Amino acid sequence: MASTTATVTGADLATVAELAQQLRVDSIRCSTSAGSGHPTSSMSAADLLAVLLARHLRYDWDEPRNPANDHLIFSKGHASPLLYSVYKAAGVVSDEELMTGYRRFGSRLEGHPTPVLPWVDVATGSLGQGLPDGVGVALAGKYLDRADYRVWVLCGDSELAEGSIWEALDKASYYKLGNLIAIADINRLGQRGPTELSWDLDTYTRRMEAFGARVITIDGHDLAEIDQALGQAGTPEAEHPLVILARTKKGRGFSEVEDRENWHGKPLPPAMAERAIEELGGERGLTVRGPLPPADSADRATAREAGTVTLPTYRVGDKVATRKAYGQALAALGARPDVVAMDGEVSNSTYADEFAAAYPERYFEMFIAEQQLVAAAVGFSVRGYRPFASTFAAFFTRAYDFIRMAAISQANICLSGSHAGVEIGADGPSQMALEDLAMMRAVHGSTVLYPSDATCAAALVAAMADREGISYLRTTRGAYPVLYDSAETFPIGGSKVLRSSPDDRVTLVGAGVTLYACLAAADELAADGISVRVIDAYSVKPIDTPTLTAAAAATGGRLVIAEDHHPEGGLGSAVLDALTSVGRADLAVAHLAVREMPGSGTSEELLDAAGLSARHIADAARRLAG
Amino acid sequence: MASTTATVTGADLATVAELAQQLRVDSIRCSTSAGSGHPTSSMSAADLLAVLLARHLRYDWDEPRNPANDHLIFSKGHASPLLYSVYKAAGVVSDEELMTGYRRFGSRLEGHPTPVLPWVDVATGSLGQGLPDGVGVALAGKYLDRADYRVWVLCGDSELAEGSIWEALDKASYYKLGNLIAIADINRLGQRGPTELSWDLDTYTRRMEAFGARVITIDGHDLAEIDQALGQAGTPEAEHPLVILARTKKGRGFSEVEDRENWHGKPLPPAMAERAIEELGGERGLTVRGPLPPADSADRATAREAGTVTLPTYRVGDKVATRKAYGQALAALGARPDVVAMDGEVSNSTYADEFAAAYPERYFEMFIAEQQLVAAAVGFSVRGYRPFASTFAAFFTRAYDFIRMAAISQANICLSGSHAGVEIGADGPSQMALEDLAMMRAVHGSTVLYPSDATCAAALVAAMADREGISYLRTTRGAYPVLYDSAETFPIGGSKVLRSSPDDRVTLVGAGVTLYACLAAADELAADGISVRVIDAYSVKPIDTPTLTAAAAATGGRLVIAEDHHPEGGLGSAVLDALTSVGRADLAVAHLAVREMPGSGTSEELLDAAGLSARHIADAARRLAG
Repeated sequence: MASTTATVTGADLATVAELAQQLRVDSIRCSTSAGSGHPTSSMSAADLLAVLLARHLRYDWDEPRNPANDHLIFSKGHASPLLYSVYKAAGVVSDEELMTGYRRFGSRLEGHPTPVLPWVDVATGSLGQGLPDGVGVALAGKYLDRADYRVWVLCGDSELAEGSIWEALDKASYYKLGNLIAIADINRLGQRGPTELSWDLDTYTRRMEAFGARVITIDGHDLAEIDQALGQAGTPEAEHPLVILARTKKGRGFSEVEDRENWHGKPLPPAMAERAIEELGGERGLTVRGPLPPADSADRATAREAGTVTLPTYRVGDKVATRKAYGQALAALGARPDVVAMDGEVSNSTYADEFAAAYPERYFEMFIAEQQLVAAAVGFSVRGYRPFASTFAAFFTRAYDFIRMAAISQANICLSGSHAGVEIGADGPSQMALEDLAMMRAVHGSTVLYPSDATCAAALVAAMADREGISYLRTTRGAYPVLYDSAETFPIGGSKVLRSSPDDRVTLVGAGVTLYACLAAADELAADGISVRVIDAYSVKPIDTPTLTAAAAATGGRLVIAEDHHPEGGLGSAVLDALTSVGRADLAVAHLAVREMPGSGTSEELLDAAGLSARHIADAARRLAG
Repeated sequence: MASTTATVTGADLATVAELAQQLRVDSIRCSTSAGSGHPTSSMSAADLLAVLLARHLRYDWDEPRNPANDHLIFSKGHASPLLYSVYKAAGVVSDEELMTGYRRFGSRLEGHPTPVLPWVDVATGSLGQGLPDGVGVALAGKYLDRADYRVWVLCGDSELAEGSIWEALDKASYYKLGNLIAIADINRLGQRGPTELSWDLDTYTRRMEAFGARVITIDGHDLAEIDQALGQAGTPEAEHPLVILARTKKGRGFSEVEDRENWHGKPLPPAMAERAIEELGGERGLTVRGPLPPADSADRATAREAGTVTLPTYRVGDKVATRKAYGQALAALGARPDVVAMDGEVSNSTYADEFAAAYPERYFEMFIAEQQLVAAAVGFSVRGYRPFASTFAAFFTRAYDFIRMAAISQANICLSGSHAGVEIGADGPSQMALEDLAMMRAVHGSTVLYPSDATCAAALVAAMADREGISYLRTTRGAYPVLYDSAETFPIGGSKVLRSSPDDRVTLVGAGVTLYACLAAADELAADGISVRVIDAYSVKPIDTPTLTAAAAATGGRLVIAEDHHPEGGLGSAVLDALTSVGRADLAVAHLAVREMPGSGTSEELLDAAGLSARHIADAARRLAG
């Protein structure tokens, strides 16, 4: 067994060749030891990563938080054996950790990379996401940090079938991201057989060039070719993202699996692994580091002095749409230099255009590409910015996989979805968010907010800006009266009790537009001598369990919950979850929600048809009150 | 006012010019009358549609269900004024309906087209979906119906930024869909300003040609050029999808708005509309129809005689994964000639490969493009097939917007998501579906099924094949013992009570993998003298409210609900919704779900860490039992 423990910097290609074999051997060893993983998908890219690590990646391995470090994202996250073998080769993960930790319970070396590791920017494993995330990081580098770091993304070939890859290349060229380098490992084989384009590098080249990339095609196992190609990596001043299309062989280096089908995602059985390691020249113990980031590449961003955030205020009774308040509050938050905004070509509907007008240098138009919209936000979060991304609430469904992965990525991003529910009126169901509360509540660690009035909306936008994880604000199309004085506070996890008396017989729970109907119903019921409590559940997740529990107790467990959303997973679920989370609950619940497929109409017609108008709420309360 | 009521067939271009102006005038009239809508986006495409309607679209307007009809899909669904004006020009919608119905409550002329209209195949309005849906229809035409109909899709230019468009073109060329024609209305202006590529038709052409399309670039207001281009529309035998890139002007024909910004999605005020109609030559009353579908283009599909479906059977106690049962049941259903299957390049994991092996001519590989995967299913549904689409359950999040829109499209599609929950083990959270039940339950009219064993899984696959709307099956990675004899039945909306006695003190509700832990917990509790009821809630939506209600009543309202899913919107919510839907409910609930971000590990380790193992369930039951 050849073995050395010397640390090599500025390795020559002969050493890099050894390093590449080490990466292959370690990829095999750790996956065989774990009994699962993707060694063959790692072996195809081992030469690419060896050259990158040893000679091109500018990275201070002793200080992963050095802001001048290059970024390395494995868009093909299943090649985690390779990534972790790279970390071992860089001297930051021990062989013992690699061999006993990989894919084991409690280990940070998970089956697919996540940021529980300090060198990982974003979680990958859902294909086609690493490159869009990298676009976000590169946007930050070129336009905000104005720094020299490069963003290297290793892509697989199967994932090039994802539309999100083309959204990413499109935006990378639109924004002239010369600091972005995609290395595509074209190993010809997917999970169940050949990929769509196999080794048709000409077609890949034509597509990528048409999407604005500079493309270099190489033999991905020729170290000199790789070295030359990686040396072309641009700077932020370059005009085109670089794609290195590397023709490779899956399982490269072990004749029993090289370029063979049916070896995707399978560890080599131990005896086979032994033969492979022998064919690859045995284990090695190289520690290899490449260049450090240049000392002069420190942050050249313009001075980031925070101005004073002065939130907009509204006069009680004035009619203001919460989406408008979103835009105005966001523009106010722009005084914080870490706040950036982006939108999916509807900024004059979401009112993100208020921010764009005030801070054009920190506003990024993503056009109609919601996956890239969210991925860009994730990338900005990687660089410590506070991104706000907006589109119609309905269209965040387009990016749900990205939102789910953003939570695994530990990203801190703020999403604002406008035009919620049937309230939007004439545009019809395609534009109505009726699943968004369910979708966003189910995201791990998420915050889901649904203000009814402009004062509340502005306060929540400010609160989101300091919130960890995925925060979501649901806004309404129409303008409704301001309910709250600007002195009111709206803590996340809180609620507002708008009507309350010792005689309350039913609790009405609304949020957003339905709160107005709850208030009108309360008036109607009061005229009938029925006193009800009204709660504004502006914080849908976390929800105000103590206030809801107290209200339920005070009103004999009788609740009417009204939401402009399908019945499943939204406000109603949040309330039921809360009430049953603290012990025995004796409940009589009327849950009013959008149960039929809506069409077009006015807000009033559609809300009434869905059973969400004041008369329906009052009727439900009367029935409960008996 | 020029007006004629004669029906013109085989119109010459002079008549077509009049028709085009009529379409513009009617688009203005109906949107002004409604007070909302997108007249300028309609006017840019009026010439294209006039030529298409009068001279190329083979459509029997008297019989929209004629299977030989061409298909016309407005991917730019906001151009509904144009579409409905086309319907008026074809004589199937009256001027009165257009003027009093458009965007009104209760009308079928919704803000964006939906299949409440007999001539509409799929709902559009979420951009970038009409073309992928059209790919599905064209796949059916070329490979299953083997018919001559063409699929015409009108695309906007803004939506060409959606990755789904490129997934669609990629699959259209991969499958050589010469029967698909995309007409792209390149009017340069999006909602809030110029599009990303404006009138850069060269770049569009390069991109589309690189993606395998035959591209013809025309002046979209030159009727002769349009006519010649549309005449190039291919047949199923042609090798390439055709894209007609039409350079147009938004608001074409009315000088006050033509090619001007800030006129997206705005009706003309009445006085302005009057001036526009005058400039356009006044109202017209043309009824124009184009060619009928050729009589000899009837269904040339191979004889579709249904064979006998013999579902697989399993021996109680044998360990079989539900995903395996999915594949085997699907292969059995292949005896029905309307059943087709597709998968996102993971068919050897979802076991869709069982169907692919048995019926390769009805299996369509979609590679890693989940949006197109679901859109293809929608397209097959349009043609009356029963599509089953599968991938990892986690990756259906990628297609959530398509699933949501499929419900509005009234599509009947069956989705199967494998590898649910932390049970998958070592691959880690990126591959774990932990939001899918919430996501799928929130879809209007959906069915959500989660079998625990192979017998149940096979039965549910068969039931899905006759179910209306969006059906979703959640399957498990690992192999678990068969619980049910093949004689058992599993109606949708039902459940199985596996343990029951008059002394039951707590109800345990599980589904899928957690059912096994519930059964083990019941054994453990029985040993302690605590009798519990165990319910297999295999039908999560609709859920078996009577059985759950009876169980809750019999066990003092004490329930433990265990689900391998995040706490929000899944089985727990389904049970709480059910129990509170039928009157007062006095409940003491322990809801066990995945509350922390999981990592890698074995199934057992991860289920236990999430609090979903038998000991946790038993502990929760003990606490409830007091």
